[in-house]
Amino acid sequence: MCLNLRKAGFPLSIYARRPEAVQEVVDAGATLVDSPAAVAQASDIVITMVTDSPDVEQVILGPKGVLEGVRPGMVVVDMSTIAPATARKVGEACAERQVGFLDAPVSGGSQGAVAGTLTIMVGGERPTFERVLPVFAAVGRPENTLLVGPVGTGQVVKLINQHLCGVIAAGTLEAFVLGVKAGADVETMARVIGSSSGGNWQLDNPIRLRAFSGTFEPGFFTDLLVKDLRLVLQMADQLKVPVTLGAVAMQMYEVARAQGYGRRDYTSVVRHLEEVAGVEVRVRPQS
Amino acid sequence: MCLNLRKAGFPLSIYARRPEAVQEVVDAGATLVDSPAAVAQASDIVITMVTDSPDVEQVILGPKGVLEGVRPGMVVVDMSTIAPATARKVGEACAERQVGFLDAPVSGGSQGAVAGTLTIMVGGERPTFERVLPVFAAVGRPENTLLVGPVGTGQVVKLINQHLCGVIAAGTLEAFVLGVKAGADVETMARVIGSSSGGNWQLDNPIRLRAFSGTFEPGFFTDLLVKDLRLVLQMADQLKVPVTLGAVAMQMYEVARAQGYGRRDYTSVVRHLEEVAGVEVRVRPQS
Repeated sequence: MCLNLRKAGFPLSIYARRPEAVQEVVDAGATLVDSPAAVAQASDIVITMVTDSPDVEQVILGPKGVLEGVRPGMVVVDMSTIAPATARKVGEACAERQVGFLDAPVSGGSQGAVAGTLTIMVGGERPTFERVLPVFAAVGRPENTLLVGPVGTGQVVKLINQHLCGVIAAGTLEAFVLGVKAGADVETMARVIGSSSGGNWQLDNPIRLRAFSGTFEPGFFTDLLVKDLRLVLQMADQLKVPVTLGAVAMQMYEVARAQGYGRRDYTSVVRHLEEVAGVEVRVRPQS
Repeated sequence: MCLNLRKAGFPLSIYARRPEAVQEVVDAGATLVDSPAAVAQASDIVITMVTDSPDVEQVILGPKGVLEGVRPGMVVVDMSTIAPATARKVGEACAERQVGFLDAPVSGGSQGAVAGTLTIMVGGERPTFERVLPVFAAVGRPENTLLVGPVGTGQVVKLINQHLCGVIAAGTLEAFVLGVKAGADVETMARVIGSSSGGNWQLDNPIRLRAFSGTFEPGFFTDLLVKDLRLVLQMADQLKVPVTLGAVAMQMYEVARAQGYGRRDYTSVVRHLEEVAGVEVRVRPQS
């Protein structure tokens, strides 16, 4: 994403806990600084992208955090996937300093990040959104960059997507294990179901690329999907809404983590099912 | 489907338990006869399409059934959705009389049946399949009419599709109820998720048409999806394969039936979730 921002001509200051992780970005002309506050001092728009809610609080609200370097009129954009309540808390802290805030989580995986074709779900006010649009255009598809509501709503829509991602991938793989055990061919099932009422993005993309091939190369870590499903269940709990299938799917990914697949692609959820059924859901490469 | 066969020029004999149900087909030139055996006597290819496994056994193997009217060299095609084991049993009974058999369940709903654009998943032998292709071409899309394996495999692939249909529809609606409760807009969620990793056919078609509109006009009866999921769970039980998400989804549709939605569209599974959450997942028509 940083490389795509550089390609689009934006001057860039960058902070990372592990500076060696951003060497390629520095080589592309970004200035490495020593704190989130220093990024804010050097910038008009600050983007944060970290793992979970406490990380966002630390990097924006904590010591040497973004808010220690901001000036009134700036904009802070958090592109992490975190709790909507945390996004609202950070948004309020920004507003107190007359700083705009957008929560702008993305979808599209490492592939979309590299290609600059991410989907971006934005929560915030329209003037702030419009000011950041040129930046979003450098990392995502403009037609899939949408203002979805007030601050926090970007996270809500992202978590709903992650719920579906988790349920659909686990459900599709569970069904395919049964189909293989019952004598059907994986490629044929994928072709028929892909053009039928069971068709879904998970089947056509991560499942085909990373489960049918047996590589389970991430893609997207099982650990991160579990984190996202945990956020879904926390939000549902706070709102008193049952998400039965989401809760069951999360337990299936916990099995994958217990088997050592936390840092593998989340489609590795199929491994346990394959083992108990005594079959494998694979497509042999064409010779 | 009968009307499409007539349109394609096939002479047609027809039997129905309730003759008044096929008046339109008779008006289109089909000959009404008084038993499945009489259909077989008048035909080279016999198609059965009924609700469940026992119905297929009765209409093909029972008194005055298809097998009482067949001649060697004919083909029997069952297009119902039933247990793969029943398809194999009927296929063996046909083979004993030197009659070909195909199990050929369809996907695409009443809409696809009317338009002649069904997906057809066929189990059986290739020469038999090729002989029936012109008939399939009158009711389905040729590019989605596939021989998927030996007798019974058509049903396996159909049931895998129905598992996905059930899990994905219930999962998507569960997620949307949570999203609405958390303050997101239905149309916006559908647009963003439809172009993201949670995208699926259920969202773009039955859910959009029949749940977001609040009509729950079938479509496809909740009762029939429960029947299909029951077949999935029976097959999984026989093969000792856990289908956890499929089992949970089935219970959600049982709730819809208990609420009186058995003869409504299966997307009515959302009603119970809406009631407990105190929200509705609707899109207001554009004025």
